[in-house]
Amino acid sequence: MALPKTVKIVEVGARDGLQNETAEVPTAIKIRLIERLAAAGLAVVEAGAFVSPKKVPQMAGSKEVLLGLKRHPNTAYPALVPNIKGFEAAVEAGVTEIAVFVSASEGFSQHNIACSRAESLERLRDVSEAAASRNIRMRGYVSCIAGCPYDGAVAPEDVAAMAEALVAMGCYEISLGDTIGVGTAGQIRKLIQHVSTRIPCEKLAMHFHDTYGQGVANVLASLEEGICVFDSSVAGLGGCPFAPGASGNVATEDVVYLLHGLGIKTGIDLMAVARTGDWISRHLGRANASRAGKALLAVKMEDNAHGG
Amino acid sequence: MALPKTVKIVEVGARDGLQNETAEVPTAIKIRLIERLAAAGLAVVEAGAFVSPKKVPQMAGSKEVLLGLKRHPNTAYPALVPNIKGFEAAVEAGVTEIAVFVSASEGFSQHNIACSRAESLERLRDVSEAAASRNIRMRGYVSCIAGCPYDGAVAPEDVAAMAEALVAMGCYEISLGDTIGVGTAGQIRKLIQHVSTRIPCEKLAMHFHDTYGQGVANVLASLEEGICVFDSSVAGLGGCPFAPGASGNVATEDVVYLLHGLGIKTGIDLMAVARTGDWISRHLGRANASRAGKALLAVKMEDNAHGG
Repeated sequence: MALPKTVKIVEVGARDGLQNETAEVPTAIKIRLIERLAAAGLAVVEAGAFVSPKKVPQMAGSKEVLLGLKRHPNTAYPALVPNIKGFEAAVEAGVTEIAVFVSASEGFSQHNIACSRAESLERLRDVSEAAASRNIRMRGYVSCIAGCPYDGAVAPEDVAAMAEALVAMGCYEISLGDTIGVGTAGQIRKLIQHVSTRIPCEKLAMHFHDTYGQGVANVLASLEEGICVFDSSVAGLGGCPFAPGASGNVATEDVVYLLHGLGIKTGIDLMAVARTGDWISRHLGRANASRAGKALLAVKMEDNAHGG
Repeated sequence: MALPKTVKIVEVGARDGLQNETAEVPTAIKIRLIERLAAAGLAVVEAGAFVSPKKVPQMAGSKEVLLGLKRHPNTAYPALVPNIKGFEAAVEAGVTEIAVFVSASEGFSQHNIACSRAESLERLRDVSEAAASRNIRMRGYVSCIAGCPYDGAVAPEDVAAMAEALVAMGCYEISLGDTIGVGTAGQIRKLIQHVSTRIPCEKLAMHFHDTYGQGVANVLASLEEGICVFDSSVAGLGGCPFAPGASGNVATEDVVYLLHGLGIKTGIDLMAVARTGDWISRHLGRANASRAGKALLAVKMEDNAHGG
C-alpha cells in the first residue's frame, strides 16, 4: 500500500470553522488568523464566504477580510459563493478562486439551501460560466457524503453523480465532505473506491469532521486509497449544528502530525500552526480542540520550564 | 486486508484513567463506574492498583473497591500490582487476575519505578510464581513502546524483548502501550510486524493514548495488522503527566464507534458506555474527552427534543 509522498492541506478554519463558532470574531482577528496560517506554509487558506449575512452572520465581513489581508505569494485564498450574487461580491473583493457547494443528499439540499440537488446544480451554472470567463479557479464541495441528518444513509452513487456534475461544470478539485462526521474507515474506503471509478483520485479531496472522533482515522484510510488533498481546520475550529457541543472539523495539527509521522511532506510548519491554534482558541474563549496542538505546546512549555 | 470479526476491549478508565485525574474520587463512585462498565458489556474492566498510596493517591481505596463491587459473571476485574507486597494485598481483596508492567525504555523504567528494565523483570519473578501457584491470571504491560519522555526513540527490538520476557513469565496477553501517545500509524504497523515475529498476534493487545490525536487511527492500523484486543478508557479519562493539559487514553466510545462501523463485534452497548462517560465526566468536573460519546448524547437529546 503506497502512500502519497506529498499531501496538500486546504485550511478551512477561517471559513467552515469560524462559521460554526458562536463567538463573534472581529475582521482584524480573521485577517491575522489567515495571515498566520499562510505564513505557517499552508498553500490554501479558505478566507471567507459571500453568503447571506442574515443566515451566516459570522461571514458578514468577508469582503473586508479579503481586501484587507496581505497575500502570501505561495498561498491561494478561495472564498465560498452560493450563487451569482455572491460571485460578483467575491470578485469585487479581489477573489481569484471560489468554492461552490452541493449536497449528496436531497434532504440536506432542501433544508440547507431550500432547493433540490438538481436545482442547486442549475443555480451554479451561471457562476461557473462567469468564473470560467474571468479565469477564476473553482473548487467544488459535496456535502453529506457519509450520511445526512435528514435522510440517513447516502448512496455512493449519489456522491459520485454530484461530484461528476461539478467536474463537468469546471471544478478543478472536488472536496467530499462528511458534514456530520458519522463515517468510519471501511465506509470511507468503499466510497473513494466507488467515486474514483468515475473521477480520477488526483481531482478528489476529503473533508472530515471529528464529531465521532474518526477524523484522523478517516484521513489514514483515505491516504491508503490514494487521496492526497485534505481539508482541515486549525485547532479543530467549528462544530456540528446537528450535534450541539460536539467536535468540529478535524484539526489541522492532528492531521499534519499524522502526515509527518508517515514521512509525507506537507510544507507546513507544525509548531507555527499549533501556536496559531492556541492563539485563536484563546481569542474565541474556547478549548483548543486539537490534541496534537495542545500536546506540542504543553511539551514545549515543559521543555522551557526544565531548561530554566 | 481481513479485519478481525470480533474485538475485545480492556476498559482501563477506572485505573489508568482515574490514576491520572486530579479530582479525588470516592470509593462508591469508583464501584459504580466499574459496575456500569461491566453492565454495558465490557468483558474486562481494570478495577484498581495495589501500589504505593503515597505515589498514586488515586488508587488508595483499591481494596475497598475490589471487595465492594458486585461482580458481573461475564467480566474480569484485573488489578495492577508492582511487586509481591502489592500481589498479596490484591489477593486479600479477592483479585483473580493481575496486571504487571515493565518499560521498553531504560529511562522510563529508572524514572517511573527506580530500577533498570532487567531489575524490573527480576522483581516480578516472585509475583509470577505466586500468581501461577494460586491460578491467578496475569496480563503484562510494556510501556513507552513508541517513544520515551527521557530516552526519545525506542527500538522495536527492545519492545519485543520485554514482551517476550513477560510471556516467558506466564502472562497470557501483552499490552503494548504508547504511554505518551507519540506514535503514528506507519510506526505502529512496523512495530506490530516486528513484535509478532516473536510473539503470536493473538497474545498481543495495543494500548493507545490520544495525546497527539492518533489513538483511533492507530487502532485502525493495528486492526489491519491483525490485533484484536485494545485497551481504552471511558470518556477518554486520564491525561499525560508529560504533556500537562493534553488528552489521555483513547476513548472507549470512539474506538467502539470505529469497530461497530467496520462491522466488528464487541458485545458492548455503545450508548450505555456513552452515558457512563458523561456521568463520570460530570462527577470529575471535567469535559468529556470522548468525541463519539458527546455526539451520541447530543444527537440523542436533539431527537428527544424534536420528539416532544
